[in-house]
Order: sequence, then structure tokens, then C-alpha cells
Amino acid sequence: MSKLCKTFVVVNRFMKQNHLVPTYQTRMNSTATKLFYTDYGDPMKVINKQNEEVRKPNENEVLVKMIAAAVNPADINTIQGKYPSKPTLPAVPGNEGVGKIVKVGSNVKEFVEGDHVVPLTPNLGTWQTHLIAAKDQIYKVPKKLGIVEAATFTVNPCTAYRMLRDFARLKPGDTVIQNGANSACGQNVIQLCANWGFKTVNIVRDRPDIDELRNYLTKLGATYVLTEDELRITDIFKSGQIDKPKLALNCVGGKNALECSRHLQNGGSMVTYGGMSREPLNIPTSALIFKDLQFRGFWMTRWSKENATSIDRFEMFEELITMMINDDLHAPAFEFVNFDNYKEALLNTLTIKGMIGKKYILKFE
Amino acid sequence: MSKLCKTFVVVNRFMKQNHLVPTYQTRMNSTATKLFYTDYGDPMKVINKQNEEVRKPNENEVLVKMIAAAVNPADINTIQGKYPSKPTLPAVPGNEGVGKIVKVGSNVKEFVEGDHVVPLTPNLGTWQTHLIAAKDQIYKVPKKLGIVEAATFTVNPCTAYRMLRDFARLKPGDTVIQNGANSACGQNVIQLCANWGFKTVNIVRDRPDIDELRNYLTKLGATYVLTEDELRITDIFKSGQIDKPKLALNCVGGKNALECSRHLQNGGSMVTYGGMSREPLNIPTSALIFKDLQFRGFWMTRWSKENATSIDRFEMFEELITMMINDDLHAPAFEFVNFDNYKEALLNTLTIKGMIGKKYILKFE
Repeated sequence: MSKLCKTFVVVNRFMKQNHLVPTYQTRMNSTATKLFYTDYGDPMKVINKQNEEVRKPNENEVLVKMIAAAVNPADINTIQGKYPSKPTLPAVPGNEGVGKIVKVGSNVKEFVEGDHVVPLTPNLGTWQTHLIAAKDQIYKVPKKLGIVEAATFTVNPCTAYRMLRDFARLKPGDTVIQNGANSACGQNVIQLCANWGFKTVNIVRDRPDIDELRNYLTKLGATYVLTEDELRITDIFKSGQIDKPKLALNCVGGKNALECSRHLQNGGSMVTYGGMSREPLNIPTSALIFKDLQFRGFWMTRWSKENATSIDRFEMFEELITMMINDDLHAPAFEFVNFDNYKEALLNTLTIKGMIGKKYILKFE
Repeated sequence: MSKLCKTFVVVNRFMKQNHLVPTYQTRMNSTATKLFYTDYGDPMKVINKQNEEVRKPNENEVLVKMIAAAVNPADINTIQGKYPSKPTLPAVPGNEGVGKIVKVGSNVKEFVEGDHVVPLTPNLGTWQTHLIAAKDQIYKVPKKLGIVEAATFTVNPCTAYRMLRDFARLKPGDTVIQNGANSACGQNVIQLCANWGFKTVNIVRDRPDIDELRNYLTKLGATYVLTEDELRITDIFKSGQIDKPKLALNCVGGKNALECSRHLQNGGSMVTYGGMSREPLNIPTSALIFKDLQFRGFWMTRWSKENATSIDRFEMFEELITMMINDDLHAPAFEFVNFDNYKEALLNTLTIKGMIGKKYILKFE
């Protein structure tokens, strides 16, 4: 090997080790840029960026150029190694997102170039410019579906949908109570209930801008918005202004969840999908025996895995997308962050403190 | 009215007020004796005894001469006014018991004199020598069914049966974990599981006579008997000696229940039917979301009301009675107490502290 050649190899190895990866393809405008991590830990430290050659999809694969990808709290927990769903490392983070197909494998008849798609399987790694996916790992969405709606479609709207459908037989006029009502999922719950004719009692933490928040959630379709203190003394159920809830959705835990469960009808269910207070649920024995309350949990990742190809899943997708296209279901408040500034999105998601669960969305174009 | 006659009326009124009720019928050997209470409170104070004339059953009724009646903790709670099922006062206490039909109404074709019957409805008032019941309030049991089995049949064996049937799809070889395993219901659980091929892990409080208790429950069919401390460190599940439980039955609450729930399989259920520790259930959020555990309650009174005439109910009765007659299901340890000494039975049930849930049974003959 010539001296020049040897030098190139050494430099190349160094750059590869440092994820700089200069390649012929880079200069051919076919460079992919991806975030990745090789160890679980603080996302601000373990997440790195890497350029690499875009490879061609094999016969059953497609090449997707990402348009936008959501940064969810669960993504952060996954990177921290605190989430039960643990990808094999090294891994590209990101569960949600929307992209455009730019190349299909020779056996792929289900998609054509230009199709917009979202991931069907968890941990597909949406935080990269180019994504190779097997054809059964993605789902085609209409191009008229908004980019933000598409990029935030598979977690929160689906979670809200399933919790409202699978744990109680709700009919129009029935009541649902939820805490953390200003979360991204909570906002979906409010809107789905409004669409389906269910009333909602929405519990939020008291805060300086409470009137603004009340106004925001009411416009989304909330029937009542109460602070935790207001819930404790409210007479809306006793006075008959609204039926006692059949279903309670809990993403807080602790005293807040207990207070919500107290208002449930006999035979009602509380579904837990988060634990923001970091306090366990406290359930009086009498609520179980004499009120016949049920306490269950919901995890979208498990549901999707268990129902990967079920009719229920695709009916849900179609119904939600139709609502979104018809302007009956809106994505929660969001902010685009250029992919290059991904650290800003990570930091903001890690330290989220806003009035409502604002979602940070990586934008690739 | 003559002076003599007036005196009789006054005496009669006095005796009636004091529940002595001397009547012509009393002297005709058709006196009924009943316990009753006109106020909720301490059973030792509010329960009184009264004699009264036996009335004839009307056309759709039967007259039952009681043979034996169980004294259950729930009877005590009902008298104390602490139970959600509140009879109209004045009331005759007693939910369980077996009696013999001594007279049938003219329209009653379902029963004949001599039939042994048990109550089908709660709060029928079994703590009396003679009981008038509508024909649809009682259920005929075979005469070869033991008196104790019949008198303790409608609460604990049925509770155990339903909890094992209605909350998990158990198949032979599956595991059930329960606390308070030495209770009357716990003993039924052990025996039903043994009959149906389910394994049981039985949690009891540590005590001086633990070996005796272990031996007693093992003879009933228990697979494992562990103290609370032993449960905390056991490796029977990790080592594969026994599958993780699909179902946990809880009559204790607090830490004990939490410890039991920790061993449940993903997707498993805990059914609460008592709260002896008087501590609420404490459920980690992750157990609900990621382990998909369910926490529910069971109350036999509600089930019986909701399934009063269901096929399930009568199939259960037949199956349990067959097991009892075949010597596959035994009544828990018991002690007969003569009806005249009912206070002894009340006091013992109030202060129950024995190794196993010994049942006190009022004997009428």
C-alpha cells in the first residue's frame, strides 16, 4: 500500500471511530445522518450524530427519507435505559415520525416512491434522515394528513383511543374523568370524547395561568376543567350536573389518582398509563369490594405488539386519520426543531414544564 | 272491659314491648324464638331474643324450622352497621344456615315438608328457630349433605369458587397465590384448587404453631404454605419449582398484598375480597402499565344479587354440593353453639384469634 493510501486508511478509521465517516457517497449527495447511542444514559451525553452511506433497500425493504420525527418522553426514558422496551445497542432513537418513500425494493408492491409512511413497529429509529424499513414495519398515510399529525400519530392518539374503547362500554352522554388532562395524551382524550359524545372532567394542577389553560382545554372540547383542589370539593356529581364517570384515566398516581377514583361509578375502571407524581396508587379495600372498581394499566407498546396485524389496529388508524383530516382531531401544541439542533429538542423534552404538553418535533427538511 | 281483662292487656303490652310475647300459640308448642336488633351497634348489646307466635306460610311461602346457622364476620359487621348491605330494622340477623321445611303454602309445588333448604337471598334472618320464606328465597339441598356444610355453604365456598372461575382462565398446573390462607374462604380456595388441579401458594402470618398450621393446610391440598417473611425471600418462582401465579386472592391488603402481587405473571389479576390489615392496597404504576396487572374486587352479596337466577349460580351450587357429598370439599373447622348460648358465638366471632378461621354455628335442635 502506498504511503498516501496508508494515510487515507488511518484517517478514515479515525473518522469512522469518531462517527465522521467520510465516504464517496457523502459527496454523492446520498449521505444519511443519524443519531445513535451505544450506551444507556443521559441523552445529552450518550446521543451522538453520525453520517453514513445510504444503502439500497433489499427486495422486501423500502428506503424512507424522514420528514419529521417526534421526541417523546418515552424516547428519553428508553435512551436512559429506564424503559422496559430496550433496543439492542447501538441503536438509533425515535419511535414516531413520518417520512417519504424514496426507493422501494424489487418485491415491494404495497408502496410506491413518494408515499408518506409512519412506523408500525416500536424502536424503528426515526431520528435519522434516511430509514431502511421492512415493508411490514411501516404504514402508509394520506399525503393530505398534516406532517405534525402524522409524526405524532402512533403514540398519543392511539393511546387515548384504546383507553376510551377497551376498558369501559361508553355511550354518548357518559362521563370520563382524567388527570394530567393537559398532557399530549390528555388533549387527545378530550378531543376524542368530544367527537364521540362523551363528557370529560379534566383535572390539572393549579398554576398561575390556570384560566388560560382552562380556556385552551375547553376549546378542545373539555366539559369541565378542575384543579386538584377543586375536584376535592366539587359538587358537579352530587348535584347531577354530570353523571359519575364510568372510566378514569390516570397518568399521575398518588393522591390525585385516589381522588379521581373516588368519583367513579360503581363498577367503574381506572386505567393507568403514566405516573408523573412518582407515587404509587393507593386503593381502599372497600372501593374494590363494595364499589367493584377495577384498576388496570395500559401500555401502547404492548398493545401494538399484541395487535400488530389486527383489524382493530387498522380500523383505529383509519378512524383517527379521518378525524385529523376532517379537522376534528388536532395534534397537541408543538414546536419544530431543526434536526441539526436535536440537542435543543432533547433538553426541552427532558425539562418540560410548560402549560401544556408541548411536543418537540425534529424537522429534517 | 273487666279488671282481669284490663290487667291482661297491660301485661301483654309490657311483655310484647320486652319481646316476651306470651301468646296462645306459645302454649300450643308453636313458639318461634328469634334474635333481632332494632339499632345498629355492638352485637353484644343490640341483639335481643324474642319469642313469638309462628304464623302460617301464605300460599307462596314455606315455613322452615332452622337446624343450624353460621355466624360470619360479615354478620357482625352488618349488625354494627359497618356493612354496605343494610337490612331494614328491626331485623333478624343471619345470612347462612340450613333448615327443614315444616309447612308449605298452597301454591308451593317446588318443596315438600321435610326438605332441607338454604337461603338464596341475603339477610333472610337465619338466627331464629322458625323462618317464613318466599319459595324463591330458598334452595333445596340434598339431605345427605352434612348439616355444617349446608349451613356454611352460601358464603365461603361460593366466594372461593367464583374468584377462581371469574377472574383468570386457569388450567390444571396453573398457580394461585393467596394470603389469609387459613381463613374459612382460604381453606375453600385450597380445596377447590386441589380438586381442579391448580397449585396454590398460601401465605399466612408467622405464629408459634406455624408447623401445625402448615400441616393442616397441606393436608387440605396446599402446594406451598409460606409465612409473609418466607414469601419475601422465596425462590420457588425463580427456580421454576412452580409457575408464577396467574391469580392472587387478597383478604389482607397492605404490604402483604403488595408482596403477593409482585409474584404475579404479566397480565395476572389480584382479586381483593377482604382487608384484614385495614391497610389499603399499594400498587406501583409500573405493575399496571408494564406488567399489565389487574386489581379487582369480589363481593359475594353483589354477585348473588346480580346472578340471582343465573344458570352459573345453580351449576356452582350443584358442583360444590357434589364435591362436599363426595368428601372432596370439607367445611372449615367449626364449633356448634346452642342457640340459647348465641352470645358465646357472637363473642367468639368478634374476638376470633385462632390458628384457623374457626366458624361458630348456632344449633337449633
